[in-house]
Amino acid sequence: MNLELYLKEKKRLVDGFLGEYVSTKKKQKDCPKRLSGAMSYSLMAGGKRIRPILAIAGYEAGGGRSGNIMPVASSLELVHTYSLIHDDLPAMDNDDFRRNKPTAHRVYGEAVAILAGDALLTDAFNIISNSGVSPGKLVRVIRELTKAAGPEGMVGGQTVDIILEGKKAKKKDIVYIHSHKTGALIRGSVRIGAIMAGASPAKLKALTEYGEKIGLAFQIIDDILDIICTKEEMGKSTGSDDAKGKNTYPSTFGLKESEKIAERLVDDSVKALKGFDRKADPLREIAGYILLRRN
Amino acid sequence: MNLELYLKEKKRLVDGFLGEYVSTKKKQKDCPKRLSGAMSYSLMAGGKRIRPILAIAGYEAGGGRSGNIMPVASSLELVHTYSLIHDDLPAMDNDDFRRNKPTAHRVYGEAVAILAGDALLTDAFNIISNSGVSPGKLVRVIRELTKAAGPEGMVGGQTVDIILEGKKAKKKDIVYIHSHKTGALIRGSVRIGAIMAGASPAKLKALTEYGEKIGLAFQIIDDILDIICTKEEMGKSTGSDDAKGKNTYPSTFGLKESEKIAERLVDDSVKALKGFDRKADPLREIAGYILLRRN
Repeated sequence: MNLELYLKEKKRLVDGFLGEYVSTKKKQKDCPKRLSGAMSYSLMAGGKRIRPILAIAGYEAGGGRSGNIMPVASSLELVHTYSLIHDDLPAMDNDDFRRNKPTAHRVYGEAVAILAGDALLTDAFNIISNSGVSPGKLVRVIRELTKAAGPEGMVGGQTVDIILEGKKAKKKDIVYIHSHKTGALIRGSVRIGAIMAGASPAKLKALTEYGEKIGLAFQIIDDILDIICTKEEMGKSTGSDDAKGKNTYPSTFGLKESEKIAERLVDDSVKALKGFDRKADPLREIAGYILLRRN
Repeated sequence: MNLELYLKEKKRLVDGFLGEYVSTKKKQKDCPKRLSGAMSYSLMAGGKRIRPILAIAGYEAGGGRSGNIMPVASSLELVHTYSLIHDDLPAMDNDDFRRNKPTAHRVYGEAVAILAGDALLTDAFNIISNSGVSPGKLVRVIRELTKAAGPEGMVGGQTVDIILEGKKAKKKDIVYIHSHKTGALIRGSVRIGAIMAGASPAKLKALTEYGEKIGLAFQIIDDILDIICTKEEMGKSTGSDDAKGKNTYPSTFGLKESEKIAERLVDDSVKALKGFDRKADPLREIAGYILLRRN
């Protein structure tokens, strides 16, 4: 299979759904223009749509076929975008640039940025509840998403990341931060795709292992790129983890060892898929892509 | 009926559910202690639990009887609490006190306060998805809650409130702010109770009208109390709307006229319930209580 083509095609579908969402939002008379503007600004800033694509690929690997996955998959990008907006706030990571553009609070002010994040998170659940998928499945999806994004998942990881900033963290704290801050939603995305496909418990378990490994690898590689890439390549300030006293894999395990850990995780993620047929090829290829990506 | 007893009894049930939720949260090893601490601090700060109680009363008025309403009703308090935490932030209303206690960001810092709000909002949907109610009903509840709390509801109202601070707003903007910032979630609470009860479309419509009227009245009276009460009576700084250049009903329509509008809304809310039997008495009594409350 051609991964580049696959990613391009799925991104186009997700962008199509999100574009439709944003344009409907802007026409809602009950939604203030400045709010829909801020939501749209961040959501359409040119993300790679990795989480929705992982949900779609997890859905295909799990044997799903109908077109019904698109709203649920796209809702994951709203959750991801809300987390970036809040993460960039002055009281949090205080970042001025994201994807080569000024961050939401730099353009819309802090208050509207906070509210735009809140609105995107809330709307993610609105999109899911209106997706037309069977209610039984939707309730499972919502349970999964809230676990992945909530205080035992992504928000938990962000909290420890902030609390330990400037302090020397233990190795187990680094593993916690990375597997939760970034890993939980990536793992959740794959699992949500599998749940939507009605995958068997055995398949769901294997896909969970895959998602867990690449989720952790994804953040480790992010940390590595923050060190070895230029600002232009990354679309945001680089070297910033170090300047902020962030606890990262390279700062804890060293650059070489971190690369090895990431490679091993990616290898293991592909091994977890050994019982799957060719329909899991996109997931296999995406694992390799995560390891080699440069932005 | 004895309203005081009714409110006390329902509050006790809601507090019981929330206490259980908080104590489970604190034991979750994947939830950072500081995060569960901040969530618990704000959630258990002694709210009146008006939104959950309205959902319960709406449920009873709609003919609901089983005990299944408690998780869904209590989840509304998580949404309300998240909105207060974010609303109090320095970038928003910048309030130091709430219910006679320092606000969350004063105790836990801004970053953890933002994240605690995010966590409570996410967990509200987690509680709903785990409430054991039929999936078909839960999907309707989630659709309702996201509309009430999202960019076309509460978050929309907060946005316009902030944008127009210090500016002279038009009367229609004030009506928008109040009916959305506070009104939408109150209306949504009554509707969610009715949906959970499986109320007929006609009953749902009447309960919606009731919720809309008291939701708006609630915020108008809040504005009036901000002028006529002391800080001790209110548990938070008073006279602050005026100091911040907030657009309120009294600042736009005058104190006397605002009182009249609130009275009329409460009258109309009770009239909307004319087709209901005695099971709607709590809703009727709560309408009067809202008008007369002093904190």
